[in-house]
Amino acid sequence: MTIKLHCFGESGNAYKAALALELAGLDWGPVFVDFFNGATRTAAFRALNAMGEVPVMEDGDLVLTQSGVIQDYVIEKTGKLGGASPEARREVWRWVLYDNQKVSGIAGPLRFQMNFLAKDKRDEAVIGFLKGRLASALGVLDTVLADRDWLVGRDVTCADLSCCGYLYYTEPFGFDRNEYPNVDAWLDRIAALPGWKHPYDLMPGRPSDRA
Amino acid sequence: MTIKLHCFGESGNAYKAALALELAGLDWGPVFVDFFNGATRTAAFRALNAMGEVPVMEDGDLVLTQSGVIQDYVIEKTGKLGGASPEARREVWRWVLYDNQKVSGIAGPLRFQMNFLAKDKRDEAVIGFLKGRLASALGVLDTVLADRDWLVGRDVTCADLSCCGYLYYTEPFGFDRNEYPNVDAWLDRIAALPGWKHPYDLMPGRPSDRA
Repeated sequence: MTIKLHCFGESGNAYKAALALELAGLDWGPVFVDFFNGATRTAAFRALNAMGEVPVMEDGDLVLTQSGVIQDYVIEKTGKLGGASPEARREVWRWVLYDNQKVSGIAGPLRFQMNFLAKDKRDEAVIGFLKGRLASALGVLDTVLADRDWLVGRDVTCADLSCCGYLYYTEPFGFDRNEYPNVDAWLDRIAALPGWKHPYDLMPGRPSDRA
Repeated sequence: MTIKLHCFGESGNAYKAALALELAGLDWGPVFVDFFNGATRTAAFRALNAMGEVPVMEDGDLVLTQSGVIQDYVIEKTGKLGGASPEARREVWRWVLYDNQKVSGIAGPLRFQMNFLAKDKRDEAVIGFLKGRLASALGVLDTVLADRDWLVGRDVTCADLSCCGYLYYTEPFGFDRNEYPNVDAWLDRIAALPGWKHPYDLMPGRPSDRA
C-alpha cells in the first residue's frame, strides 16, 4: 500500500480520515494502534504524534495528523470531497471545525465514558453534561439538513465525512437516530455511497476483540 | 470599518478571530453580541449563523463563521500569520484543529461552568472532568513549546493565536501558568507582539459590565 493510516476501529476521529481515503479511491492501508493497551501513550507513538492521538497518516516521508488535515490532504491529492469552489472548500472547513469542537469532539468522550471506561470510573453527571452538549450539536445538524442532502453543496464532501465520524457506532452514547430524522436520512445517504464501510469494517479493532 | 466581527469579550473563540484581524493589520471593528442575554439564540442570529456561535465575520457580502475559518481568511487576504510554506500552513491547521477540540474546546465550557453558570447549576464532577482534559492538552502544548518559541516555524502564526484563545483570561478555570512554564513564556511572547490586546480590551463586553 502507498499510504499508511495509524488507526483503530473504535476511533471515529480515525474513521473520518479512513473514510475520506477510501471514498477518494486512494491506495491506503491501516496500521493497528492498540489504544486500549496504551499504545498512544508510548514514547514511540508520541515521537510520531506529540498530540498522542490517532489518526496519523504516513505517505512516504510525509506524516500528517488530525483527521481534518488528512482530509484536506486527500482533497488536495485527488480533487475529490472538497466541494465545487473555493467558497465551498471554506464551507467544508467550517463544518470540519464545528465537528471537531461540537460533534465528534463531544461524541467521542461521551461514547468512551458510557462504553469503554471502567464502570467504577463512570460519572453520570459528566455523561449527562456531554449528552446535553451533543444533543445541541445534533440539533444544529438536523436543522441544517432539513432542506439539503449534503452539508455543503450538492454532493458529499469532507464536511459530511467529518460530522458523521461517530454516528454509525451502535454502542450507546445518547444518540437515537429517530430523534434526528434529517440526520438519520443523511447518514443513510452517506452509507449508500459506493465503497462506504462501517468503521469496524474499514479499520482493525472492535470491542468484541477485547471481550 | 471594512470588516465587522460579531463578538463579545468573554468569548475566547471570538478572540482568536479578533486577534488575527488585529495583528494582521486589517481594518475591522467589533459588533457586540449580547450572549449573556440570549442574543445567539435569536432567530436573527441563527439566520446569520445556524451554528448559533460567535465569532461571525462580515466583509461586504461575505459572511464567515468559525474562528479557524476567519483566521484562514485573514491569512489568505494578508499573507500574514500562515507560516512560511504550504507545509507550515498545514501545520498551522493541525494546531487550529487541536485547539478547537482539546484546548479552547475544553477551556471555554470549563470557564463558563466555573464563572458564568448559575452557582446552583454548577457540577463539580463536570468541572473536574473538564479540568483533567484541559490539563492533558496544556501538557502537550508545554512539551511541544519546550524547544521552540512558536508552535509552527520561527514566527507567530494562527496556530499560536488559536491555542492562546482562552489563556489570557484571569477568571479561574483550572489553569495556573506556573504549572506550564513553557506555555507561560509563550503567552508572554504573544502578549509582547506589537498591537496585542487582552480580549477585554479588543472586544466589547466583560464580566464587570454585568456586575
